[in-house]
Amino acid sequence: MSLLSVGTVAFDEIETPFGKTGKIVGGAASYISLSASFFVKQSNIVSVIGDDFPIDFLEGMKDRGVNLDGLQIKKGENSFHWSGKYHYDMNSRDTLETNLNVLADFDPVLPESYNDCQFLMLGNLSPDVQMRVIEQLENRPKLVVLDTMNFWMDIAMDKLLEVISKVDVLTINDEEARQLSGEYSLVAASRKIMNMGPKYLIIKKGEHGALLFNEDKMFFAPALPLEEVKDPTGAGDTFAGGFIGHLAKTKDISFENMKRAVVVGSAMASFTCEAFGTERLLTLTKAEINQRIKKFVDLVHFNID
Amino acid sequence: MSLLSVGTVAFDEIETPFGKTGKIVGGAASYISLSASFFVKQSNIVSVIGDDFPIDFLEGMKDRGVNLDGLQIKKGENSFHWSGKYHYDMNSRDTLETNLNVLADFDPVLPESYNDCQFLMLGNLSPDVQMRVIEQLENRPKLVVLDTMNFWMDIAMDKLLEVISKVDVLTINDEEARQLSGEYSLVAASRKIMNMGPKYLIIKKGEHGALLFNEDKMFFAPALPLEEVKDPTGAGDTFAGGFIGHLAKTKDISFENMKRAVVVGSAMASFTCEAFGTERLLTLTKAEINQRIKKFVDLVHFNID
Repeated sequence: MSLLSVGTVAFDEIETPFGKTGKIVGGAASYISLSASFFVKQSNIVSVIGDDFPIDFLEGMKDRGVNLDGLQIKKGENSFHWSGKYHYDMNSRDTLETNLNVLADFDPVLPESYNDCQFLMLGNLSPDVQMRVIEQLENRPKLVVLDTMNFWMDIAMDKLLEVISKVDVLTINDEEARQLSGEYSLVAASRKIMNMGPKYLIIKKGEHGALLFNEDKMFFAPALPLEEVKDPTGAGDTFAGGFIGHLAKTKDISFENMKRAVVVGSAMASFTCEAFGTERLLTLTKAEINQRIKKFVDLVHFNID
Repeated sequence: MSLLSVGTVAFDEIETPFGKTGKIVGGAASYISLSASFFVKQSNIVSVIGDDFPIDFLEGMKDRGVNLDGLQIKKGENSFHWSGKYHYDMNSRDTLETNLNVLADFDPVLPESYNDCQFLMLGNLSPDVQMRVIEQLENRPKLVVLDTMNFWMDIAMDKLLEVISKVDVLTINDEEARQLSGEYSLVAASRKIMNMGPKYLIIKKGEHGALLFNEDKMFFAPALPLEEVKDPTGAGDTFAGGFIGHLAKTKDISFENMKRAVVVGSAMASFTCEAFGTERLLTLTKAEINQRIKKFVDLVHFNID
């Protein structure tokens, strides 16, 4: 039952009130597959980079069981590059620069070996690219999870709606849920969005946690209040990687198990916020993850008659 | 073991995207004691009104076991009056008008019969008034809960810090916790604030739930995602009333029971948001409360190994 992650593998340059990085490795597919690697022994990736990308990072991903057969390396071209600056509250950021580079004409090609894909995580990318991935899969995966953002709602809503109609789980943030549905109440928004196709909706609220909706059921997991948030870049992708990683590991896509997957994803995301870029994920241990999940249990547990 | 609620009994005039009220009854002590009345058979109130206040509301409070001996009625004067307008997101509001009226020179006087006070809820009022209440109590209550707001931090910080040093539980919102502590992280803020005196801190985050801190322990209760929020006025006071009402009923001030009290308070607050003013509290039944608490359990419950 293999897991396939689709998304960017890229360079980020990040400024927060706590510091400033040079060009560091980031990208949705990097965070997703690193995060998922703590739950599945092997996974596949579809992405594109230039030949400016550090080999040691790619080797590190391979060491964690990430198959790079679907990673296109474009000779003489540059990798996707984003730079941004976070405000004091860390909930909002300004994009300083976006250089699409290799992403500008990215045409995803799925190696034949990827055809056993049972869990598909479509990270944030153009809906065109996401659709071309779906179309290349010979068999429908057991679960397709889609992440997207307001940018695509603004410029490619029709195509995005087409992709949304084909997935099982959609993950977006609260503002995006409001934009997509035209409803302010997240409960009303969830109903409208689930009518667009997805049986499950996850609304990510950053430091305020995440809501999972399915039919008339609703589950909420808080974000862990942290002593210090150094850099939230990649937290949403890390969440997605932990979420689908847990599901792929357990092969159980019931609502009860999705609740667990949301908690696992939230725990993973909390680590990413503690350091710049993928730094924290690269040093993380299974014991630390289990300890953190225990913290989530303590945080919300109560007994009432 | 009697409960004493101190705060305003007042007129509000509220405009939200869902409508506009005329002058309706509000005030911290109204919401607190109405909310608490679902958990304790009797409670006392200290407040002040003018002779312009509707008798039938006062009779309704008496019917719910609220003793009004400590409610001063100033002949020929007007009751405190606030009017405000909520923005679309309901998380922020503008004050349109504040008429202190009887509140301008309010000197709280505790009837002798209030001296058995074991649970004291100091609703948002000037720290001077709050201190004069504390000073009049012959015996230190079992639990003193203080609610306050940024307004008093801006104009009366020294006096406020004096009051804070004398209470067991402080309830403020996230921005106020940051202002009071000078720390952005709520975890760091909580530590600093608990060093100011209170053993417990509740940080209210409105639609994003509430955090309870005690020593190195932390508990989070979400707000119930609602289909429609009509008017959040009084939600914080309703929370406080449910919180202290549950504690006064159970006479147990352990951390475990405070967690339950936070859930009860959150459930009560969710009702207040569903209608304008005190409307929803006045028609509420015990069965509805129990059903709603069950919803909170479902919302956050998960099992993980």
